[in-house]
Amino acid sequence: MSRFFSEKYSNLVPYTPGEQPKERKYIKLNTNESPFPPSEIALKMAAEASKRLMLYPDPDCKELTAALADLLDVSTDEIVWTNGSDDVLNFAFMAFCDDEHPAIFPDITYGFYSVFAEANRIPYRVIPLKEDFSISIEDFKRQKGTVFIANPNAPTGIALTLEQIEDLLLSDPNRVVVIDEAYVDFGGESCVPLIKKYDNLLVTQTFSKSRSMAGARLGFAVGSKDLISDIHTLRYATNPYNINTMTMAAGIGVLRDEDYTRTNCAKIIENRAYISSELKKLGFEMTDSKANFIFVRHPAIHGEKLYLFLKENGILVRHFSKARISEYCRITIGSREEMDELLKKIQIILEELV
Amino acid sequence: MSRFFSEKYSNLVPYTPGEQPKERKYIKLNTNESPFPPSEIALKMAAEASKRLMLYPDPDCKELTAALADLLDVSTDEIVWTNGSDDVLNFAFMAFCDDEHPAIFPDITYGFYSVFAEANRIPYRVIPLKEDFSISIEDFKRQKGTVFIANPNAPTGIALTLEQIEDLLLSDPNRVVVIDEAYVDFGGESCVPLIKKYDNLLVTQTFSKSRSMAGARLGFAVGSKDLISDIHTLRYATNPYNINTMTMAAGIGVLRDEDYTRTNCAKIIENRAYISSELKKLGFEMTDSKANFIFVRHPAIHGEKLYLFLKENGILVRHFSKARISEYCRITIGSREEMDELLKKIQIILEELV
Repeated sequence: MSRFFSEKYSNLVPYTPGEQPKERKYIKLNTNESPFPPSEIALKMAAEASKRLMLYPDPDCKELTAALADLLDVSTDEIVWTNGSDDVLNFAFMAFCDDEHPAIFPDITYGFYSVFAEANRIPYRVIPLKEDFSISIEDFKRQKGTVFIANPNAPTGIALTLEQIEDLLLSDPNRVVVIDEAYVDFGGESCVPLIKKYDNLLVTQTFSKSRSMAGARLGFAVGSKDLISDIHTLRYATNPYNINTMTMAAGIGVLRDEDYTRTNCAKIIENRAYISSELKKLGFEMTDSKANFIFVRHPAIHGEKLYLFLKENGILVRHFSKARISEYCRITIGSREEMDELLKKIQIILEELV
Repeated sequence: MSRFFSEKYSNLVPYTPGEQPKERKYIKLNTNESPFPPSEIALKMAAEASKRLMLYPDPDCKELTAALADLLDVSTDEIVWTNGSDDVLNFAFMAFCDDEHPAIFPDITYGFYSVFAEANRIPYRVIPLKEDFSISIEDFKRQKGTVFIANPNAPTGIALTLEQIEDLLLSDPNRVVVIDEAYVDFGGESCVPLIKKYDNLLVTQTFSKSRSMAGARLGFAVGSKDLISDIHTLRYATNPYNINTMTMAAGIGVLRDEDYTRTNCAKIIENRAYISSELKKLGFEMTDSKANFIFVRHPAIHGEKLYLFLKENGILVRHFSKARISEYCRITIGSREEMDELLKKIQIILEELV
């Protein structure tokens, strides 16, 4: 820290992204990326668009917005794009939270929420998940403040139903509820259609997971025209040209290739069922994940031990040294071959233990 | 604005970027883009990298950082990358300004500075330029607070010397001075070498102008290791994967094509001399611009009238309806052909007036 760093940030602890080691080739099952290459149409359009790189991108992302509006059946003024969905979540903390409107989110969830709150010096409260790691809507209903819920939740993968979300929205129409749907395409139910009914609902999604575009940084929020206009105000007050030309074109391309996305999601769901069933046979316990990862523990191996063993053996998974979940590992669903390789290594460690 | 928008932003007025009309093909001399296409090496590397889009980008931009460190002769921990240089300027306002450290910048300068201050709820003071639009270092020396100076300044194009900047840095080693060098490659003198001597100096630059990459969104800051680590803290607390894979690769590519950049800058400088001399012959007055634009007025035509006439005739330039400079137009230096087209149109309006 420099002697010039504003005192307001003196205790700020940044987010720690999943490790991206370069020294060795790993099977990467630690950051919930897609095992499938990006859409060929997306790549072609990005390359074509790159010839215009000397010009600024369209700050309104008009063509991309029209394509998504069409897919989601919403209006173009109900969509805002950001440089990954972290960026729109950060804007949501800025826009809808302050001393009178603290942020509220589960104790076990995406680790960035508390960092966004700290970075924006917003008070926040965490609501414990139930013993089975599910979210208690009743507990959230009792709290005042702006709610942030990942649905499906991370790292548990457990999804809320639309009825539960409507119950929460109805309980207090005077507070914003942000539903982070980063993982919704793998079996969750999107609440995007609810934005027409509830002006206090903001839904965020990303192209990083189901659309194989983590490297392109493309996220968005959908909500009532007024909520979206607030995000636009902050975007235009900090970084109006936030989506680069190549990513914008790739986004249009992947939306034209929706079948490819749907096919890939179906494969992930299939591989999730496969690895879950195999791991259960080996004595693993796990949550009911609707995401592109599973959250598992084994009575005989601590989560950290499993993580370290797999890393030594060329497979990266994610372990969180955090109360309640330190026995678990979060494992991204990869290709069938990657899942078989994972199984093989896990069988080895289990044999060593007996 | 929604009824949920935090009161702290209720008066926030976003920045207005230069217009990007789609309904008609213009000669675009309004947003200081390069008339030259992006580097072929940059495009090839971006396309190659796009095949890895399913993976997150390197949040440390290691390879790109090494390439720039080499070019600038600084250490890798003295560099931070952002999604365009607006982004790093915003971080600088966040990091180094607060109620005790107001932001200080000229009255006539990049219009985003006051917006960054407002967006971060930071008090700011503007220091009037001298009558000839040059910056009075003495006036800045008298003020307490964090200084933001564009060098060359926009929209005047007037540059400070390194001696003047050192004078400012020395006058108060306990405050940060941010020098925004967006336009430095067209004849200004970069103060990057001064970061080794002054731990209170932060220099920002962009790949949007001299490197023909406005569409890729790539900016950076250079400063002492400690200042840079403060920006990294904010970056990791808001958007760690802020540089997408394609832009990162294009950045590496254009740095390998430095001769192309230098050649293009030389052409801009040549075209600036040409158009300046021709316009002077027609009675225009102008500042001594070291940037890729000129700032001109004519005793017989108000700036707004000239702007509107040129727009009607297919050429976009920038006019600011702002005290002190409303008689002027800022005109981006384009290709020789574009400059000749501009001259032709200007000759027409001047003939109409006599």
